[in-house]
Amino acid sequence: MPTWTDAQLASIDSMLNPKSVAVVGATPRMQYGGRFLNAMLKAKDRVNIYPVNPRYDEIMGVQSYPSVSDLPEAPDLVGIVVPYHQVLNVLQESREKGARSAIVISAGFSERDLDDRRDLQGEVGAFARESGLRICGPNCLGVANVHADIWPSASSRGSDGLTGPIGLVCQSGASAFGPFLTRAVEEGIGLSHIISTGNEADLDFCDFARYLLDQDSVKVIAGFIEGFKDARKLIELAKLAAERGKPIVLIKIGRSDLGSRAARSHTAALTGSDALYDEIFAQYGITRVQDYDELLEVSQLLAHTGRPSQHGVAVVSHSGGISSLTADMCGQAGLDLPPLTDEARDGINDVLQGFGWAANPSDVTGFANSDSFPEIMRHMSEQPHIGTLVVASAGSDAQAAQVIAQRDTSERGLAFLWTGTRSATDGLSMLKGAQIPVFYVPDKLALGISSLLGYHRWRDQRLSEGFGETPAISASQESVISSMKSQGRVAFSESESKQLIGAWKVSTAREIVAGDADAAVKAAGEIGYPVALKVDSPEILHKTEAGVIRLDLSDETQVRAAYDQIMSSASQAAPGASINGVLVQEMVSGGVEVIAGVSYDEQLGPVLLFGTGGVMVEVYNDVALRQCPVTRSEALEMIDQVKGSRILKGFRGSAPADVDALADVLVQISHMGAQLEGTLSELDINPLMVLPEGQGVRAVDALAVFQA
Amino acid sequence: MPTWTDAQLASIDSMLNPKSVAVVGATPRMQYGGRFLNAMLKAKDRVNIYPVNPRYDEIMGVQSYPSVSDLPEAPDLVGIVVPYHQVLNVLQESREKGARSAIVISAGFSERDLDDRRDLQGEVGAFARESGLRICGPNCLGVANVHADIWPSASSRGSDGLTGPIGLVCQSGASAFGPFLTRAVEEGIGLSHIISTGNEADLDFCDFARYLLDQDSVKVIAGFIEGFKDARKLIELAKLAAERGKPIVLIKIGRSDLGSRAARSHTAALTGSDALYDEIFAQYGITRVQDYDELLEVSQLLAHTGRPSQHGVAVVSHSGGISSLTADMCGQAGLDLPPLTDEARDGINDVLQGFGWAANPSDVTGFANSDSFPEIMRHMSEQPHIGTLVVASAGSDAQAAQVIAQRDTSERGLAFLWTGTRSATDGLSMLKGAQIPVFYVPDKLALGISSLLGYHRWRDQRLSEGFGETPAISASQESVISSMKSQGRVAFSESESKQLIGAWKVSTAREIVAGDADAAVKAAGEIGYPVALKVDSPEILHKTEAGVIRLDLSDETQVRAAYDQIMSSASQAAPGASINGVLVQEMVSGGVEVIAGVSYDEQLGPVLLFGTGGVMVEVYNDVALRQCPVTRSEALEMIDQVKGSRILKGFRGSAPADVDALADVLVQISHMGAQLEGTLSELDINPLMVLPEGQGVRAVDALAVFQA
Repeated sequence: MPTWTDAQLASIDSMLNPKSVAVVGATPRMQYGGRFLNAMLKAKDRVNIYPVNPRYDEIMGVQSYPSVSDLPEAPDLVGIVVPYHQVLNVLQESREKGARSAIVISAGFSERDLDDRRDLQGEVGAFARESGLRICGPNCLGVANVHADIWPSASSRGSDGLTGPIGLVCQSGASAFGPFLTRAVEEGIGLSHIISTGNEADLDFCDFARYLLDQDSVKVIAGFIEGFKDARKLIELAKLAAERGKPIVLIKIGRSDLGSRAARSHTAALTGSDALYDEIFAQYGITRVQDYDELLEVSQLLAHTGRPSQHGVAVVSHSGGISSLTADMCGQAGLDLPPLTDEARDGINDVLQGFGWAANPSDVTGFANSDSFPEIMRHMSEQPHIGTLVVASAGSDAQAAQVIAQRDTSERGLAFLWTGTRSATDGLSMLKGAQIPVFYVPDKLALGISSLLGYHRWRDQRLSEGFGETPAISASQESVISSMKSQGRVAFSESESKQLIGAWKVSTAREIVAGDADAAVKAAGEIGYPVALKVDSPEILHKTEAGVIRLDLSDETQVRAAYDQIMSSASQAAPGASINGVLVQEMVSGGVEVIAGVSYDEQLGPVLLFGTGGVMVEVYNDVALRQCPVTRSEALEMIDQVKGSRILKGFRGSAPADVDALADVLVQISHMGAQLEGTLSELDINPLMVLPEGQGVRAVDALAVFQA
Repeated sequence: MPTWTDAQLASIDSMLNPKSVAVVGATPRMQYGGRFLNAMLKAKDRVNIYPVNPRYDEIMGVQSYPSVSDLPEAPDLVGIVVPYHQVLNVLQESREKGARSAIVISAGFSERDLDDRRDLQGEVGAFARESGLRICGPNCLGVANVHADIWPSASSRGSDGLTGPIGLVCQSGASAFGPFLTRAVEEGIGLSHIISTGNEADLDFCDFARYLLDQDSVKVIAGFIEGFKDARKLIELAKLAAERGKPIVLIKIGRSDLGSRAARSHTAALTGSDALYDEIFAQYGITRVQDYDELLEVSQLLAHTGRPSQHGVAVVSHSGGISSLTADMCGQAGLDLPPLTDEARDGINDVLQGFGWAANPSDVTGFANSDSFPEIMRHMSEQPHIGTLVVASAGSDAQAAQVIAQRDTSERGLAFLWTGTRSATDGLSMLKGAQIPVFYVPDKLALGISSLLGYHRWRDQRLSEGFGETPAISASQESVISSMKSQGRVAFSESESKQLIGAWKVSTAREIVAGDADAAVKAAGEIGYPVALKVDSPEILHKTEAGVIRLDLSDETQVRAAYDQIMSSASQAAPGASINGVLVQEMVSGGVEVIAGVSYDEQLGPVLLFGTGGVMVEVYNDVALRQCPVTRSEALEMIDQVKGSRILKGFRGSAPADVDALADVLVQISHMGAQLEGTLSELDINPLMVLPEGQGVRAVDALAVFQA
C-alpha cells in the first residue's frame, strides 16, 4: 500500500481549495465558531459558505442551516466547531451528505489524557480513514491557503496580502497562527499555506507536507513538530522532497526531557530520542532549527537562494566591529571566508582610498553608503571561491537598491545582515519587498548560510549516489536465520551470534567451540597461542560480570586451568544454564577497538550504531546513528563523525587502520538491520577490532537477540 | 602601583561629565567634526562648547577659535577630529592649556597596520600616561552620558530620553552607536553610558568599565570586546564587580580563527585562546553572549531582576505549543521546572474548568487573557521551589498590567517571552515601559535565565569563600627553586622536576636514580618489584619517542637488560646528552590516569590545566583550565567539568578514586603556578595517578621548564 493515496491528497486539496464550506457550530460571537465563519466569509465571492447552527436563521448576514443534511449542496469542506461529544455525529452526517473533507477545531480529545477521550479520538480517526472523509484535527485551528486567500481557520488573524513560497505546517494551532504567522508578516516573509494539524486523529504533519510538495507555489516546507505519530513517513517525505529540491526545515521538541514531557501532555505524542532524531534529520537532509524566527529566516534563505556555486562566503560591512563579529560567527558555524584575490583587494582599495580594510571580511566604512558600493560588492563576490555574498549593514533605500541590483545581476547568492532596528523602514522595507533574505544577528546569519550550504551538499550527494538500498536476503542468510529461529530462543550465544554476522560477511576472530578441556587444548593448538577462553551459552550474555572470560592464555597448562575456572564460574553465575561449551579464540592484537550494532526504534525502525570502543564510548557517548540501510559514503561519514576515529587514522605514529573494511562492514550490518526488521531485536558487536590497512576487521564478541 | 588611579578615573569623569568641551576640527558639514559639535550643542545649556577651527569664526551659531590655546578657559574635554598627523600637536597644546581629557575620533593609527602608524599611536598613548591628559581612542566614535544627556560623540545618533542602568563599553564605535544603541532603544532597554574605546592607545575597556563600577546609575556592565590589551585588568575588574554585585556581560570575538583574524586587522588586538577565555569568564563570573540582542536582553534581565530565591522556574503560556517549546529550551539550558504542588494544580484547574493543562509548564489557553490570569500567575509562582516566573504570551495592555502587578507584588523574579510581533505596541510597550525583561524567542529566554541563575550561584559562592589566594612561598620551596636556577638550564629531568613538585606537596611514585646497573638492581630491591626504568636527563624530555622507558620489570635480569637498552637508546637518541642516570620507579597500579599542569598565557598569566589522561585527552581535548591560583571548590569544579572524571567516581564497579587528594594537589599546583610566574614556563604532570579513596595521588612523570 502506498503511504499516500490520490484520494487522500485530493481530500487535503478540498480543504485548501474548497468551492463550498460548511461551518458547523458557527455563531455570531467571535469565539471559535464565529471566527471560523468570519474568516471564511472573506472568501465569500469565491466560495459558497454555509453556517450550520439550528439556533439561527442567519449569522453574519448569511443564511444558516439547521444541519449539514439541510445544505443545498455537498460541501467540499466541513469546519466543525461543536462540543467534542457531537463531533462524530457531525462527521457521519457530513459523510452522508457527501462532504469531501473536514477540519475539526473542537478540543477535548486525547489531549485531555483520559481513556474515553483517547478512544473517542481513535474512533474519529478510524471513521476518517474508512469513510474517506479525511480530517484535519481535532484540537487544531484550521488551515489557510495564503495564495488563494482562503482561510478555513478559527484564528482571528487573516491575510495581509503577503504571500510566498514557504508552506508552514505546525501541530500547534496557537503557534501556527500566532508567532509563526505574525513574525512572518513582520519580517516580510511570505507563506503559501498555513496548516495546523492539532491532535492528528487522521491526517498528520507528513500527509500535509506531502500535499505541499506537489504544489508549485511551495518551495520550502517549514514545520513545528512536537512528536511524530509515524516518523517513517517523514523519511519517505524527505526522500521525495530531495528529488523535488524542496528543503524541509523543522523545529522539533525533544531537546530536553522537560520539553518531551510537556509535549506529551499537550499532544499525547512521543518525542523520541533526540540524539537519534538529530542524526536522522542529518541523514535525510532535514534542517533542524531552534525557534520561530530562525525557522522563518532559514526557510526564506533556502526559498530565495539557489544552490551556491561555491562554498566560500564573502562578508562586507560598514563597520569593523560588525564585520569581525560576523566573521567570527561564520567561522564558528564552519563557513569558509576565503582571502580576497589580489585583484579584488586592489579594486576595493582603489575605492577606499586609505580608509577601512579590504579583506574578507571587508570593513568599507562609509563607502557602504556611497555610489561606489556596487563596485565593492562586485569585487567581493566575483571571486573564484565565493558562492554567497553577505552584506552586513543598515543603510537607506539607496543602499537597498544597490544590494537588490547586485542580487539580480550576479550569479552569487546574497544574504543581508541588517544591523539597524527591526522596525526600520528606510532600506529594510525595500530589502524585504525584494525577498532578499534578511537576518538580524550575526550568529543566526551564519547558521542560516551553513544550513543552505549543508542542504545543497547533502542533496548533491544523494542525487549522485542515491539513498541506501536493501538487497534481497540471500539463501544462505535465510538458512542461518531459519536455523536460529528453529531454536525457539530470543538470545544467542557468542558463537551463534557470530554465525549470524558471518552470514553478512562480518569477519570474526578465529575460534572453535570446545566441549571439554582436551578439546580446548587441541583447539588452542590449531588456532595458535595466545588464546582467549570464554563460555559459550545463550543464557550467559554478560560474560565479564559472570567471570567466564580468560584472556592471553599462553600454554596448555593455562588453557586447562582456565577451562576449569570458567566452567565453575558459569555454574555459579547461572546454575543449570544450557552451555554449548567453551569458545577458544585467537587473541586479536594490533587493532583499534570500536563497536557496531543494530537496534530498532519504535518510530524509525532499524538503527545502525557505530562508536569508539572501550571506556570512551561510555564516558563520551561518542557514537553515530543512522537509519538502516546506509550507503558506503554514509558509513564513511559515520566513521568521520565519531571523534575517537582519529585513532583509526594513525594516532601517535601507529599504522592507519582498515577504514575501508570497516565501512564495508557497517554497510553489511545496516543491510542486515533492514532485512531482519521484525525478527532481530538487537545486535551488538563489541569489540570490533579494526586491523591495520588491508587486514580487515574482526568481530571479537557479538550478541544477537531476536524479538520475542 | 594600583591598576587604577584616582587621577585616571577623574580624567574619565571629565569626559563623561564635562563642564566645558572643545571640538577641534569642528566643521559646519555633518561629517565627523560637525557631528561631534552638533551632538555636544544639544547640551549647550549645561556645557560650554568651543569649536576650534581656524577657518571659521563661527560654526553652527557658536563662536569658533583658531586653536585650543585661544580658548577662554581650560576645557574639561577636548574632542579631536583632525588628520592623524596633527593629533599629537593638538594633544600637546591641550595639555598646555590645562585640558583634563581628550577623545580622539581621528583614525589612521595602528588599525592601518603600518609601522609608523603603530609608532605614532604608541607616542599618543605614552603622552597621555605621562601628561595625565587621558585619552579615549583614537579611531573611536566618542562617548555618551545618557543619564546626563551629554553626548561627546561623532555619532549622528543621540538620546531619545530613554535611560537605564546598563553601562555599555565597546571597542567598535560603529557597533556601540549602531546596533547596540539602536536595538536598545527599539527594545526599550535603557543605557546609562555608551563608551567606544577605539584603538585604546591609552584608556581601555577595563578602565572605562572600572569607572562605571563606581557610578550609582550603573547596575550592569555590557561590553563588546574584539581583543584585550591587558586581560588581567579584566580579572581585577571582575573581582571588584562581584563585590559590588554588578554583573559583566560580554561579547568577545575569538570563537573562530576567522573572527580573530578579522579583529586583529581591525583593532590590532589579539583575541587569545577562546577555550581559555571561556573558562576564565566562568571562573570570574563574566557572562559571555553571542550577539547584540542577547547582550541587551541578558543585561536587562540581570539589571532588573534580583537574586532568585530558588533555582526553579515556572512557565505559563496561552499556547500548548509555545509552552512545550519554552520548556524544551529551558531544559536544554539546564533549568529546572519543578512539578506543580497539588495545591497549585488544583487552584489552576479551578480556573481552567477543564480547558488547558495545569502543570509546569502550564497551558492556560485563553485564560491568559482573562481576569483570572493574576490568580493563575500567583499559583504558578508562589510555590516552594520557584524563584522565577516566565509568562510566554502576547496579550494586550490588560494582560501587561496584570503581569506588571504580579512582578511588583511578588518576591519572585519575572521574565516575559513575547510571542507576538516585535513591533506590537498593545501590551508590549507597557511591559517595556515597566522594565519587565522581555525576550522574543524561547531559546534566548532560557539562556538568559540560565545566565541569571549562574551569575548569582557564582557570586554567592565567591562571597562566601573568596577568590583563590596565593600563599607566600616557603623557605624550602625557595631553596629548591634557587638550586634549580643555579643549574643555569631551562629544562629539567624527570627526577629534578619531581623534586620541584615535591616541594609543593605533590606525592610522586617511589623512585631512586641509579648510576649503573648494580645500583638499579639495588634500587629495584628497595622499591619492590615490579619496577619501571627510565632515563633521567634534562636533555631527553620526550622519553617515549626516544625509547628510554621500560615498564613492568619483574626481576633482576629484566632490570639489568632494561638498564643496558635504555643507556644505548639514550646515546642513540641524544648523543652526548648529560644523563643523571636511570630512574628506578615503582609501578603505580590501581589508579586512574589524569594529567595536570601549568602554563603561562601572554595575557592571563599562570593557567592551571586538569584533564583526563592517556589517549582521551588527545582525542576529546577533555580538559579544564583556570587562572592560578584556584580555591578548593574551583579545583573540584574543574574535576567535575572534565567528562572523563566519571572514571574517578567509581566506574564499572571499580573503587572511587581519591578526588579529595586530587583537588588538594590541583590547589597546590595552582599556588606554584602563581608563585613561580616569571620563573616557570611550563609544568606537565603526565600521568598523575589518582589512587583509590584515602590513598592519595602519585605523579608518575613530570616535566618542568623554566623561562629562558
